[in-house]
Amino acid sequence: MGAAASGMTGKQDPQVRISDRFWDSYRELVRKTVIPYQWEALNDRIPDAEPSYAIRNFRITAGMEQGEYGGMVFQDSDVAKWLEAVGYSLAQHPDSELERTADEVIELIAAAQKEDGYLNTYFSIKEPGNRWTNLHEAHELYCAGHMMEAAVAYYEATGKRRLLDVVCKFADYIDQVFGTEPGKLRGYDGHQEIELALVKLYKATGEERYLALAQFFIDERGAEPNFLVEECKQRDGFSHWANKKIAIPTVAQMAYNQADKPVREQDTATGHSVRAVYMYTAMADLARLTGDASLLEACRRLWANTTKKQMYITGGIGSTHHGEAFTFDYDLPNDTVYAETCASIGLIFFAQRMLQLEAKSDYADVMERALYNNVIGSMSQDGKHYFYVNPLEVWPKASKLNPARHHVKAVRQKWFGCSCCPPNVARLLSSLNEYIYTASAERNTIYTNLFIGSEASFELAAGRVGLKQESHLPWEGYVRMEVTESPKAELALAFRIPSWSYGEAEMIIGGQAAKYEVVDGYAIVTRAWSEGDVAEWKPRLEAQLIAANPAIRANAGKAAIERGPLVYCLEEADNGDLLSSLTIQADTKLHSSYDPGLMGGAVVIEAEGCVDNMASWQPDLPYRPLAQQQVQEASSVTLRAVPYYLWGNRKTGEMTVWIRTSGL
Amino acid sequence: MGAAASGMTGKQDPQVRISDRFWDSYRELVRKTVIPYQWEALNDRIPDAEPSYAIRNFRITAGMEQGEYGGMVFQDSDVAKWLEAVGYSLAQHPDSELERTADEVIELIAAAQKEDGYLNTYFSIKEPGNRWTNLHEAHELYCAGHMMEAAVAYYEATGKRRLLDVVCKFADYIDQVFGTEPGKLRGYDGHQEIELALVKLYKATGEERYLALAQFFIDERGAEPNFLVEECKQRDGFSHWANKKIAIPTVAQMAYNQADKPVREQDTATGHSVRAVYMYTAMADLARLTGDASLLEACRRLWANTTKKQMYITGGIGSTHHGEAFTFDYDLPNDTVYAETCASIGLIFFAQRMLQLEAKSDYADVMERALYNNVIGSMSQDGKHYFYVNPLEVWPKASKLNPARHHVKAVRQKWFGCSCCPPNVARLLSSLNEYIYTASAERNTIYTNLFIGSEASFELAAGRVGLKQESHLPWEGYVRMEVTESPKAELALAFRIPSWSYGEAEMIIGGQAAKYEVVDGYAIVTRAWSEGDVAEWKPRLEAQLIAANPAIRANAGKAAIERGPLVYCLEEADNGDLLSSLTIQADTKLHSSYDPGLMGGAVVIEAEGCVDNMASWQPDLPYRPLAQQQVQEASSVTLRAVPYYLWGNRKTGEMTVWIRTSGL
Repeated sequence: MGAAASGMTGKQDPQVRISDRFWDSYRELVRKTVIPYQWEALNDRIPDAEPSYAIRNFRITAGMEQGEYGGMVFQDSDVAKWLEAVGYSLAQHPDSELERTADEVIELIAAAQKEDGYLNTYFSIKEPGNRWTNLHEAHELYCAGHMMEAAVAYYEATGKRRLLDVVCKFADYIDQVFGTEPGKLRGYDGHQEIELALVKLYKATGEERYLALAQFFIDERGAEPNFLVEECKQRDGFSHWANKKIAIPTVAQMAYNQADKPVREQDTATGHSVRAVYMYTAMADLARLTGDASLLEACRRLWANTTKKQMYITGGIGSTHHGEAFTFDYDLPNDTVYAETCASIGLIFFAQRMLQLEAKSDYADVMERALYNNVIGSMSQDGKHYFYVNPLEVWPKASKLNPARHHVKAVRQKWFGCSCCPPNVARLLSSLNEYIYTASAERNTIYTNLFIGSEASFELAAGRVGLKQESHLPWEGYVRMEVTESPKAELALAFRIPSWSYGEAEMIIGGQAAKYEVVDGYAIVTRAWSEGDVAEWKPRLEAQLIAANPAIRANAGKAAIERGPLVYCLEEADNGDLLSSLTIQADTKLHSSYDPGLMGGAVVIEAEGCVDNMASWQPDLPYRPLAQQQVQEASSVTLRAVPYYLWGNRKTGEMTVWIRTSGL
Repeated sequence: MGAAASGMTGKQDPQVRISDRFWDSYRELVRKTVIPYQWEALNDRIPDAEPSYAIRNFRITAGMEQGEYGGMVFQDSDVAKWLEAVGYSLAQHPDSELERTADEVIELIAAAQKEDGYLNTYFSIKEPGNRWTNLHEAHELYCAGHMMEAAVAYYEATGKRRLLDVVCKFADYIDQVFGTEPGKLRGYDGHQEIELALVKLYKATGEERYLALAQFFIDERGAEPNFLVEECKQRDGFSHWANKKIAIPTVAQMAYNQADKPVREQDTATGHSVRAVYMYTAMADLARLTGDASLLEACRRLWANTTKKQMYITGGIGSTHHGEAFTFDYDLPNDTVYAETCASIGLIFFAQRMLQLEAKSDYADVMERALYNNVIGSMSQDGKHYFYVNPLEVWPKASKLNPARHHVKAVRQKWFGCSCCPPNVARLLSSLNEYIYTASAERNTIYTNLFIGSEASFELAAGRVGLKQESHLPWEGYVRMEVTESPKAELALAFRIPSWSYGEAEMIIGGQAAKYEVVDGYAIVTRAWSEGDVAEWKPRLEAQLIAANPAIRANAGKAAIERGPLVYCLEEADNGDLLSSLTIQADTKLHSSYDPGLMGGAVVIEAEGCVDNMASWQPDLPYRPLAQQQVQEASSVTLRAVPYYLWGNRKTGEMTVWIRTSGL
């Protein structure tokens, strides 16, 4: 790793292997089902699903097949994300057959690479003369970035350099094309991704030029004259998406691509949400590696705006499907929501990088929220169906019949024409081990950010430390941490005090209640930890009714149920339809019980509520005096809430996270 | 008038002149401001407004000017609607200068007519060879229909036949082109309008062929094979709107044009809402004039579906801007609403025709609701600014920054590129006299549907009857009806018992409480009325909190305020922003008081409510336990509601019709 300016560092990253009651099944699902299923999808072998064309495009480019390019302009990235997931999976679970398949794909990719290093099937097949003429729309560098991430993951898992060499050659070529030197393009991609990928490539290879190139892309973004606007003029306004000439966009319109102003001047999460969080991730990487204070400040501002004012309670971001974008502060409609799966994954990346910069539990709180709710909720329990949009309120009939809600699907889909989300879930879940801990080697401190059963080893200044975590999350607030190796020097174990514990958390060391220091949301115990020492960490985990800031108009008069990291929801399967007719008592007791029959077992919550009396309403009476209602009191009813991540796995029906409250 | 099969009939229509405290100012606004202003708009003389091109198109077609066609394909209809409004206005207020202007426009129109009778500036200028090749999209018959309506109105006002002759020649030509006979087109327009217009033309001229042609268009609609689908195949899929070839639409997609099945088989309001209600209007006309029972049944079904399950409390219809369309039963979102002005006007036409078919107060209740709320609310108090979309909830920032709400304007616009609504308001308000009464000559019964001060005369079987109505609506439930002429025979005066009186209405005749018979929502007094007799009609008019059917999910837990025919709303100007933080006490007293300073004077309503305590919330805290809220009780507050039709006439701000209730 290069010279670190600040933040979490180590001689090398912690080595972590997950073994966890809750997550093992997810990771096994990814390994046994999602990765093989997505391989079938990439090869267009899923019946009744939209074809991917992705492998076929590489075969055509490599001259192994004749045909037309198929799919989106960024279809290559699906193969890359799949390979990246395979890399992470192989690192944890060697699988010679999967590795052989991956090696074959890598040979195919290598065969599709041009002599000069260029690698992109869309431009190779469809527009060979038009490289780098539409960075605004055509995702060339975006696809390059994903291939770099795949190469690094595969190299780190297997030690094989084949794909790494391919992407290094490509990166070297890109470095010759882009830059501030005369004759080079002072440009950047319309869809950020390569910036964070180049940081990974730098880390894997030690090649400083890749870090500098990432920095270049970040620094040029939004500079005047605006590259993307000028580029569009060069094309005479031709738009890939519209397939015709369009009006030259304004600089202000480049806010969609976070390129309307320099990144250091941005303070509000704006535009396409995935682009935004991928960029913030790279900004945090660079702030850490270069010690750039203005970049760190921008990261903090953008983090605060994103997570405090533009984030759903599920960790979803992006309030509109128009441009898959942020809208503005506190505009978080539950029914016309976007909350794209990829955006929450990008938010997790951003959180991880901020944690590497500074140990503040807030970053991990958000990471956990997005992971346990929006992200895993996007995948069906069978691992073969996905949500792209993750709503907080679903009325299936409206999804079907009201065009403003067509993008909100009530049922997970097999695959998508634009299928960025499913492989993104796969690569996140198969690399989840990278999100549990951060460590400061210099300060001999290990931070536990996520409570996920695992064995980990760390190289600290004092020496090697081994930890074995056992966790009862998300169902119980219990974590057992055993020190399995210790240099017998003083070192600090820092446990995140999760936001959902509201500061109530007990530490037990060696069976005795132990005091801890609280720093930035972590409970820190500094001592000479010895092999065999056990710390038990018991953050209070109780179901709570949650209110939203009144500025979030969509949730006025409503409450949500949270229990630990999980957000809950009401489903029609448990509560009947017309969920809007239900209210929850503001002072209800929330009864939690484990239901082993609910999709592999989950804690369900029962609450006291009321249902509006509907018997007195005729279907053909739309409006009547409220006074007629008061004589017909609402009836008591027991509401049954299930974890949000499980919604839509039974029959198709209504769902809501936010519930009207009564009796406040 | 032709031989009537059923319904309301008279030797001739009632002659009605309005003189009313509330409506005189509106009608004067139309006459003195709206009609002259729209004339300027049609001539592209409004600074900073979108140009109309409408007059210019006629000049180009008539060879008086060189240039390109401008505006929408149906731009001609704006001129027609303006002329129709002028006709109505001249009928009530002769104005030689306005009449001279209109005569000049009529000469211009006549000059633009082709030798064979064809009249359409778009096809004449842009696609002279393509007449009748794109009925689906190009509004040719729609524009023809509006010109017929204008001609009839102008003829009836002035006795001048010039435009009537033009449109008869056009109608005769259309009759040669369309029909079931071999060689004729068995087609109909994508946008219904000509059907109701031909009925008017038939009535004005007595020419049975025009009635038969209207019937033909209605009967052919939705028949198999589907004309509009086949026509699109003929064009090889070329779409006017997309300006390229598109996939041939399916029959099911023709539901947008209410042409997916025969009209008699339709039972749900579907597709583009203006097209729908214009068609229903013609269906009701034809049911009345031909005695077609199946058509009548379809009208009743479609009326019930439209008004009982798909109508906003303001009388707005159309739940989505996608296709300006209905969605499905009970889907009435307040924030992403459409509720186009023209659709409510069309609903009023439909109600009027149903009243001519059968005297049921429900039709008039809806007519009044749409008129006093959605329709007059669409126009600014200065008569120069208009809403196309009439929302029930506005958050100006969201209208600006959330694309799903861009169509919901927080401020009325000067003019629109598609400016169908402003001239539609003008023609409705200037012909309002036609909506007050219906009469059955045979049964010697006069129905008062709207309470609008007026002098009217009727030709009944028993002889001529004169009535002078004085009304304190909408502020007080008081109507004074004086018989000014009477044949000294027994006749029945029927007063609508408005839905908002909930059946409580007092009749006083000659100063004495009088009994009345209740039939289908009318209070009927049958006696030998004499000149000078006075009936006072006092429907109870009190402010009420109104609840919505629980099936209307958008209004769950909320109430609206109604007072007589008026729906009320909360505006930021009176209640501050963040209207979602306000609740209204379910058992509040509603204090009505006349505020002479509120835009010419209006009754405002004060109510007891609460405002969520926001002091304890930091702007950067999006979510927290509800339990923290309970210790911070909401504060009492006095809510001030103003009539919905006045909203948006002060400063730009939030508005809501539906208010969260508390204490139920």
